[in-house]
Amino acid sequence: MIMLKFEHPLNEKVRIYLRIDTLIKQLHSSASFETPQAYQLFFRSLFDLMDLFEQIQIKSEIGKDLEKQKLACKHWMGVAGVDQAILTTILNEIDTSFKQVMAAERFGGSLKEDRFLSSIRQRFNLPGGTCCFDLPALHYWLHLPLEQRLADAKVWTDTLAPLKQALALMLRLTRETSQLKPQIARNGFFQSEAEDAHVLRLQLPVELGVYPMISGHKNRFAIKFMYFDTGNACSQDIEFDLAIC
Amino acid sequence: MIMLKFEHPLNEKVRIYLRIDTLIKQLHSSASFETPQAYQLFFRSLFDLMDLFEQIQIKSEIGKDLEKQKLACKHWMGVAGVDQAILTTILNEIDTSFKQVMAAERFGGSLKEDRFLSSIRQRFNLPGGTCCFDLPALHYWLHLPLEQRLADAKVWTDTLAPLKQALALMLRLTRETSQLKPQIARNGFFQSEAEDAHVLRLQLPVELGVYPMISGHKNRFAIKFMYFDTGNACSQDIEFDLAIC
Repeated sequence: MIMLKFEHPLNEKVRIYLRIDTLIKQLHSSASFETPQAYQLFFRSLFDLMDLFEQIQIKSEIGKDLEKQKLACKHWMGVAGVDQAILTTILNEIDTSFKQVMAAERFGGSLKEDRFLSSIRQRFNLPGGTCCFDLPALHYWLHLPLEQRLADAKVWTDTLAPLKQALALMLRLTRETSQLKPQIARNGFFQSEAEDAHVLRLQLPVELGVYPMISGHKNRFAIKFMYFDTGNACSQDIEFDLAIC
Repeated sequence: MIMLKFEHPLNEKVRIYLRIDTLIKQLHSSASFETPQAYQLFFRSLFDLMDLFEQIQIKSEIGKDLEKQKLACKHWMGVAGVDQAILTTILNEIDTSFKQVMAAERFGGSLKEDRFLSSIRQRFNLPGGTCCFDLPALHYWLHLPLEQRLADAKVWTDTLAPLKQALALMLRLTRETSQLKPQIARNGFFQSEAEDAHVLRLQLPVELGVYPMISGHKNRFAIKFMYFDTGNACSQDIEFDLAIC
């Protein structure tokens, strides 16, 4: 049984965090240039990240969130029944990550100043804009030896390493605040209070042939299941697992 | 010695033909979904093609061009010194391709009507828009068995098969109108008459460390070589091969 896993952010900041996390993963999955076309996903992810960095002060936002998380953890210090060793490990991870984020440049800063990246960024998003006549500099770069391209990619991705780590930590701690529990969507519909939650996690078997359409915010949300084959709203009861994190 | 090959269109129609040709090749190179991220390039190429089809009546344009090409070939029939067997083969290829293009739908028509493609097309171009929460239907589709995804991809790409073939033929015949000849760009600069040409083909060794910036139209063009490392105009003499097709 193949399980379909979904995540849905309940506020704008987590939405952007999840986007950036996805893009950084795509960036790394394509950064070895294993297929001749991998560069497309690599640069697309890099430029999408640069676009997002222009919309949000990601460095200060993630810094603030790490501090909040640290305070939240400190409340559990000395509380009976809480594993203090695990708590200390998490606090150390947060501290390390916070320091690395604060020591880093404004994310995207050196990418924006990179002459080669700037020269290809604008045209890259044109439909079919990666033809050699649109981007002769890129076409040249693609002919460089693999080790040189890998070295360039490493320079660019390394600038985002502290962010990658901080986001992974923040999202892991958020996801761990709640476990998946079985639920039933009567007639394909489910709604609930969210109590200041950040993200919903869902899981259901692919075989059901439905996917969720989710709307909501930190205090309340609704899930409507849709049949994939017809695009219509599902009218059956759907059993699924849900975590409100 | 690694050779760098460039092509530059000298009119808007050839520019679009080369873009579509590149995109169709990308579509096919990613249509086997060999890597987990290949779907990104596949759908991006498909949607870029759909964008281009909205800008140009590609079916009638390529039909007209195939007819022009046929007339041009007919002028060589019975001319002494022209290989009549090759000529007949080319004329047959043009005829077959023309009939297939004319028998086809308006390219992109059925893609535009496809419910699944329409449901994901708009958000696909958002920065980081392929997250599961943005495109739950796509996320579901990615969990379908490979054979089902391959079958879907085949249905979509098959609608473009006559166009793929016609473009490959047209571009091949255009490229074959002239051979590469050695040239020298004095102080990194070269200009020439083009005599109603469609496309320039260039070739030079990567080791020179330069790439061409080309401007021009069907009657006249200029090539300026740029140093890749500095982005500055090249001031050396550059030996390269050029075909004006």
